[in-house]
Amino acid sequence: MSEKPTPLSGFPELLPEHRAVERQVIASMSRTFELHGFANIETRAVEPIERLSKGGEIDKEIYVLRRLQGDDSTAGDSGPSRQLGLHFDLTVPFARYVLEHSGKLEFPFRRYQIQPAWRGERPQEGRYRQFTQVDIDVIGRDELAFHHDVEVVRVMAEALAPLPLPPLSIQVNNRKLIQGFYRGLGIADVTGAIRTIDKLDKLPREEVARLLVDDAGATTDQAERCLELATIRVQDTSFVDRVRSLGVEDELLDTGLRELAAVVEGCAEAVTDRVTVEANLRIARGLDYYTGTVLEIFMAGYERLKSVAGGGRYDALATDGRTTYPGVGISFGISRTLVPLFNDGVLAPGPKVPSTVLVALVDEESRPASEAIASALRRRGIATEVAASAQKFGKQIRYAERRGIPYVWFPDTGTGASAGTGEVKDIRSGDQVAADPTTWTPKEADPS
Amino acid sequence: MSEKPTPLSGFPELLPEHRAVERQVIASMSRTFELHGFANIETRAVEPIERLSKGGEIDKEIYVLRRLQGDDSTAGDSGPSRQLGLHFDLTVPFARYVLEHSGKLEFPFRRYQIQPAWRGERPQEGRYRQFTQVDIDVIGRDELAFHHDVEVVRVMAEALAPLPLPPLSIQVNNRKLIQGFYRGLGIADVTGAIRTIDKLDKLPREEVARLLVDDAGATTDQAERCLELATIRVQDTSFVDRVRSLGVEDELLDTGLRELAAVVEGCAEAVTDRVTVEANLRIARGLDYYTGTVLEIFMAGYERLKSVAGGGRYDALATDGRTTYPGVGISFGISRTLVPLFNDGVLAPGPKVPSTVLVALVDEESRPASEAIASALRRRGIATEVAASAQKFGKQIRYAERRGIPYVWFPDTGTGASAGTGEVKDIRSGDQVAADPTTWTPKEADPS
Repeated sequence: MSEKPTPLSGFPELLPEHRAVERQVIASMSRTFELHGFANIETRAVEPIERLSKGGEIDKEIYVLRRLQGDDSTAGDSGPSRQLGLHFDLTVPFARYVLEHSGKLEFPFRRYQIQPAWRGERPQEGRYRQFTQVDIDVIGRDELAFHHDVEVVRVMAEALAPLPLPPLSIQVNNRKLIQGFYRGLGIADVTGAIRTIDKLDKLPREEVARLLVDDAGATTDQAERCLELATIRVQDTSFVDRVRSLGVEDELLDTGLRELAAVVEGCAEAVTDRVTVEANLRIARGLDYYTGTVLEIFMAGYERLKSVAGGGRYDALATDGRTTYPGVGISFGISRTLVPLFNDGVLAPGPKVPSTVLVALVDEESRPASEAIASALRRRGIATEVAASAQKFGKQIRYAERRGIPYVWFPDTGTGASAGTGEVKDIRSGDQVAADPTTWTPKEADPS
Repeated sequence: MSEKPTPLSGFPELLPEHRAVERQVIASMSRTFELHGFANIETRAVEPIERLSKGGEIDKEIYVLRRLQGDDSTAGDSGPSRQLGLHFDLTVPFARYVLEHSGKLEFPFRRYQIQPAWRGERPQEGRYRQFTQVDIDVIGRDELAFHHDVEVVRVMAEALAPLPLPPLSIQVNNRKLIQGFYRGLGIADVTGAIRTIDKLDKLPREEVARLLVDDAGATTDQAERCLELATIRVQDTSFVDRVRSLGVEDELLDTGLRELAAVVEGCAEAVTDRVTVEANLRIARGLDYYTGTVLEIFMAGYERLKSVAGGGRYDALATDGRTTYPGVGISFGISRTLVPLFNDGVLAPGPKVPSTVLVALVDEESRPASEAIASALRRRGIATEVAASAQKFGKQIRYAERRGIPYVWFPDTGTGASAGTGEVKDIRSGDQVAADPTTWTPKEADPS
C-alpha cells in the first residue's frame, strides 16, 4: 500500500474536529436519555440473514458476509451454517436482543443504542452505506401502556433541544386516527389508501386524488376528505375539532384522536423555539408494523434530506411465539444530520485536540520539568500536552494556534522558588501572567 | 421470526448491567487520553480488500462483504469495483485514515479510537469474531521523536490504573535491543532467531535452544546467551547491567538499552499496585513492522488469555510513496478483557438502569403530579423514572429493587402546601423522610 488512498463513496469519515462535535452531541443526548432512566446497550453488527430479510423489499440493501478463505460461502463454521449480514437498522437487532435475553431484562425496558448500521444502496446526500443511528425505545412484555408513547416523544424532544442544530420539527400522527377515519369513511382498501396518501410529498394533490379513486377504490368525495385530513397540520390540539368537522364517526378514530392529542399536550413543556412538536395528519410511515403513534422529524433548511428521524408504536415487533413484546421508539439519524451540516459549514467544527494547555519546551534536557507542569495541570482535570520539540517559542505558539489550544505555558527554567512554575499566555488575547500549575485555572470552562 | 433466537458463537453481547461497566471503563480511559491531548476518531468498518490482505497470513480471518441482491459479487456499485472487507484491527484503518486525510491533520497526531473489529476465526475464551479495541497512537510525519514511546506507555498505564480489573503487568522490550544483541553476538539469521525465541511461551527451553541452532544457525553458546537474554525480567533499569554482563557489544544494542531504560524510568510515576511496568527481554511481538519499543500487557489470573494488549513503535506503518508516517501505539482488547471477567463473576455488574429515583404512582390520574416531581429532580441532574403503572406501593418498591434503583419517591396527593412534594424512601436502609424535589439530594453521588 504505497499510494494515497481515495475516499470510499457512502462511507463518510469525520476529521477530529468534526468528531469532537459528534461526540458532544452523543454525550448530550445520552445524558438526557439516562436522566429519564434509559439504559444503554450495544448489539453485535451481524444477524442471521433470515432475520434481516424478513422485510422483503429491503433485501437488496443488505451486506452479506463471507470469510475470505472460508471453506464454504457462509460466515459460520460449525453446526448448521448460518449466513450472516450486517444489520441495516438498530430496530431488528434490538427486537432480537429482547427475545434472546428476555429472561434477564426488566420490563418495561427502556434502552438507548448508538451504533452504526449498513445498507448497500447507492449513496447520496444524507444516505450513506455506513451511518450511525441514535435509537430510543421502551418495550413491554405482553403489554405496554400508552403513556410511553408520550414519554419517548418528550424524551427525544428534550434530547434534541440543546443540540447545535437548525430548528427541528417533530411531526406526529396516529395510525389509529388514519385507519379509523378511512374505515368510518367507508374506504374498502385502507392500507392502499394510506400508501397512496404517503405519496403526497412526491406527487401533486390532484394526482394523489386520482390514485385514491383508481387504485384504492375511493369515491371522489372520499378522496377529497382523505386529502382534507392529510392537510391538517397544527402545533396544538385544535386538529381534534378540525377532524370532527369532516363528519366521520369511528371508534378507532376516537382513540387515535385522543392518543395524538395526549402526545401533543404531553410534549408542550418540552417545546422550545428550536424543537417544535406538531400534529401532521399526513405522516403515515411506510413500514407496516406501526400500529398507533407515528412520527417523523424534519430539519429546517434540510427538507431535501426528508426526515432525519422517525418512529412510532409497534404492538408486535418482537415475538417468540408465546410472548409478544410491544414497543414504542424513535430512531434519529446522526450521520444523516451531521454530515451534511459539516459539509455545508453550517455546524462549526470543534477543537482539533482536547488540550487546553500546551506546555512549551525550553530544551530537550528540561522535558521532565515541562512534563511535571503538565502532570500538575492534568491532576486538576486540565487537558495538557507538552510541545513535541524545543523549537523557538514563536513556533511553539503557532503549533498551539494550529491545533486551537488556547493557552501556552512557559516553564521557569531557573532553580529558585519559581522553579516548576512559569508564565501562562492566553494566545487569543496575548495576556501573559505568572502562574502556578497547582492553582491556575483557565478563564473559561475547560473545553475538554 | 417467531422462535426464540439463539446466541451466535463468537459475537458476545452484554446485558445492560454489564454494558454499564463497559461504558464506565470506556469513559474513564477516554478521559485520561483526553487529559493527555489525544483526540478521538472513528474510522469506517470496511476497507478495500487489498488493503486488509497485505498481512498475508491474516487473510483467512477477513470477512468479505457482498450485497445480497447485488448485480455482481462486489460491495461497490460504480467505477472499478472494489471488494470490501470488515477491518480486523484498528491499526490498518488508522494508517489509511492518516494517509487519506494527511493534509488536514496536525502532526504529531495523537488519537484514540474505540471501535469493534471483526475476525472470522474459530471463537474461544477471549477470542471473538466481533470484539471492541481501545487504541492509542501518536503518529508523526517523516519523523517522530523517541519520547513519544515513553508517552504512550505512560498514558496507557495511567488509563488502566483506575479500572476495576485484576492487576495488570505492562511488559516492555525493544526490538533494537534484541536485534543489536543478536547481531553483536554474530547470529546470521536475526529475524529467524527472534521468531524462534518468541516460541518460549509454547515450547520448553531446551527445544527452543535446539531450534536456535538447527533453524537460525546459532552456535550452542550463542543459543545459550540468547536464552539468558530472554529470561531477564525486572521492574527497574537493572536489566542494563545484566545485559552488559553477557559481554555483547553493538551500537544498536546500546540504543535499545537506552530506549528501554527510558521507558521503564519514564513510567515509574505511573506504576501502582494494580499496574506495573517491567522490562521483559523475551517480548518480541510476532508482526514484523515493529522497529523499537514493543510491549504486551498481561492480567493476573488470566494468563490463559495471553496478552490483553500489545503495541510498540513502527517506523513506517503508513506511507504514500512520498511521505512516511512513523508511529507508536498500544491496542487494548476491551472485549477480550471484560467478557471473561463478567463470565467468571470477577467483575461485578453495574446498575441495570441509570435511574437514582423511582417516583411512585398513586393512580393513573395523578401521573402528571408524579411526572412533575420527576422533571424537578431531572432538572437537578438526578436520573429519575416514574412507575409504569399504579400498582400497590409494595409492588412499586419491588419494581425499584429489581432494577437496583436506590430511592422511591411517594408523591403527596393532597392539595395543600405539600402538593408536588412527598416523602422519599431509601429502600436499602428503609429510611423515609419528607422531601422537596427542588432541594433533595441523594446521599451518595448520583450513580448516573
